[in-house]
Amino acid sequence: MNKPKFIEISGHGQTKFGELYEYSLEDLIFEATNLALDNAKLTIGEIDTIYIGNMTGGEVSNQSHLGAVFSELYNFKGPVMRIEGACASGALAIHSAMQSLQASNAKTALVVGCEKMTDFESNRIGSLLMQAASQEEREAGLSFPGLYALMTNSYIEKYGLERDDLSKAPYLMHKNALTNQYAQFKKEFTIEQISNSTLIADPLRLLDCSPISDGAAAVVLTARNELNPNKAYLVDIQVSCDNAGLAGRDNQYSIAATQRAAKKIYDRNEVSAGQISVIELHDCFSIAMFMALEDLGFANPGESLSLIDDIISKKSNLTLNPSGGLKACGHPVGATGVKQLIEVAKQIEGTSALSLGLTHNVGGSGGTSVVGLVANKEYFS
Amino acid sequence: MNKPKFIEISGHGQTKFGELYEYSLEDLIFEATNLALDNAKLTIGEIDTIYIGNMTGGEVSNQSHLGAVFSELYNFKGPVMRIEGACASGALAIHSAMQSLQASNAKTALVVGCEKMTDFESNRIGSLLMQAASQEEREAGLSFPGLYALMTNSYIEKYGLERDDLSKAPYLMHKNALTNQYAQFKKEFTIEQISNSTLIADPLRLLDCSPISDGAAAVVLTARNELNPNKAYLVDIQVSCDNAGLAGRDNQYSIAATQRAAKKIYDRNEVSAGQISVIELHDCFSIAMFMALEDLGFANPGESLSLIDDIISKKSNLTLNPSGGLKACGHPVGATGVKQLIEVAKQIEGTSALSLGLTHNVGGSGGTSVVGLVANKEYFS
Repeated sequence: MNKPKFIEISGHGQTKFGELYEYSLEDLIFEATNLALDNAKLTIGEIDTIYIGNMTGGEVSNQSHLGAVFSELYNFKGPVMRIEGACASGALAIHSAMQSLQASNAKTALVVGCEKMTDFESNRIGSLLMQAASQEEREAGLSFPGLYALMTNSYIEKYGLERDDLSKAPYLMHKNALTNQYAQFKKEFTIEQISNSTLIADPLRLLDCSPISDGAAAVVLTARNELNPNKAYLVDIQVSCDNAGLAGRDNQYSIAATQRAAKKIYDRNEVSAGQISVIELHDCFSIAMFMALEDLGFANPGESLSLIDDIISKKSNLTLNPSGGLKACGHPVGATGVKQLIEVAKQIEGTSALSLGLTHNVGGSGGTSVVGLVANKEYFS
Repeated sequence: MNKPKFIEISGHGQTKFGELYEYSLEDLIFEATNLALDNAKLTIGEIDTIYIGNMTGGEVSNQSHLGAVFSELYNFKGPVMRIEGACASGALAIHSAMQSLQASNAKTALVVGCEKMTDFESNRIGSLLMQAASQEEREAGLSFPGLYALMTNSYIEKYGLERDDLSKAPYLMHKNALTNQYAQFKKEFTIEQISNSTLIADPLRLLDCSPISDGAAAVVLTARNELNPNKAYLVDIQVSCDNAGLAGRDNQYSIAATQRAAKKIYDRNEVSAGQISVIELHDCFSIAMFMALEDLGFANPGESLSLIDDIISKKSNLTLNPSGGLKACGHPVGATGVKQLIEVAKQIEGTSALSLGLTHNVGGSGGTSVVGLVANKEYFS
């Protein structure tokens, strides 16, 4: 087999994101997989290889070895394995699946991102998520809100940002989530409500923080030599890693791993941020949206606020986190990167003019960053 | 880039396996990586991508996100991610690394298999390992010795096997480990000592069981278009999955996932078991060696005992687990599959006649099985 020309996003499906006490981790995998297979008009027997993105299955559900669990659910005898890189596990699973197609080891690959988190109470899940940080940060008693609060303060010190400006990120996300049937929070908040919500880790408040969520998302990727005008294509996906801990990085007001992954995507594929019409970026905390827009090249350093203002006032055409982002759609860790690909694909499928989208999935406080490029048929012609 | 012709095993290194209380998980990764890089005569800057095989880092060391931990250790900014499939995590990481080379996304890949287990006392690590089994098996109070005891009884019922016959597997492994400087147990046992050791899960006794171990192993794989007579090559590596739990499988006296992965290896590469001169197989419990020799095609069903007898009496030339296997070399879960590749490569490097070796790494009670084929230069000519 030759290297395939195009990686088609052939089908996708997801569960609702939220507090899904009636679902087990297996139930989530099963529902998202069935929806993705139905959407792709495929049966499990037509899938060659499977990658599962998940972080906390061992701890929360007492279940590692999700490959074998999947095998049992579907009587699937091919390769299935779990990929983990904290909150970037979903995008890393997509990266692995794409590689199996590029290596011509598979023609059709399934990716399932999944996380069952609400079975633990919030202190316990907070400690568990700190497994994605460095040992020094755990020993210092830091939490992820604490880490992103440090980053927020560093950003404010460098560029300045008012409390109400920070609130614009969750404000926009809660607005976007209103039309997303899968979103955890379909509820609008005013800037004032966000700015006055409970203080969690100064300056971050409750409504700056993405929630603890259950959920799963699945996509089918197929190696193709011909283009379909109704499908979106995964053009490229790049990974960069960095220190697990914030200390020792060049600065704390940007995420260098995102900058590197984005630069690779743009350089290798000869595109620029200005050509991207839709993006799903990793807004785990309000400041993450500001940093990501800059790290991904949509705004100059320190200038993302005006872009966010323009998006809110519809002066900019950039579609930013149509799902509602991690903030309002929810953040079932391993599912997020896969959900991002689904959302971007949905915006691009069936468009007739050149249409480009970006996905951006971060592990920890920036120890892993994965950036993906999605396009319609026109990109290749 | 075109698909590379040959995947060279360019370098390898490992820590001692055992109760390494003075080593953290990071220390293990660091030592094995340094040794593999030195052996390959490469620096970390010459590595394009990294895969880490590990199961229990989150639980035992409170550290997921090993990609970012690796990045911090080596100031490495490329892609690093963790691959998990229970005790087969190491071989799955090799599979992923090979795929990245076959996809021409990398020219040089590093694989690190690692596990830090002895920080937990044995009951706790036993429960933790049951995350690799099915929920029903956990709820039934089963342990891995219990699961393999069920398989042993099923094998005995089907084919018959005396207590002292079962003991021949650990007997041979402890003999082999005497000359392995990295082995956890460099101590011989008589058949009588093994058959009379403490009963763990009837009929399995203490000396039928592989130990709890710390350790790491690393290999460097390089895409080449030319052959080096002093190197071994990873020809192919295949994965098959099956039910996480024993119930529902066709039988409990063989591992179908191993049979499928081995058949793929033989068919795709036009080799047969009879051509293999060295194998490192997954002998987590005595019965696993009997089943694997049959599942991999070295003996007919029910007839592996006579092969083991022939190996012990040197009537057979097959080199079986020269490391001492999981039983005597030790079984730091994520490291095992990588150690197997190292051992087979060492036997094959520098041979002048056609030389073929096999690796065989199992997750859980057979929910994942990974079989790899290693050869010298002659295989390709």
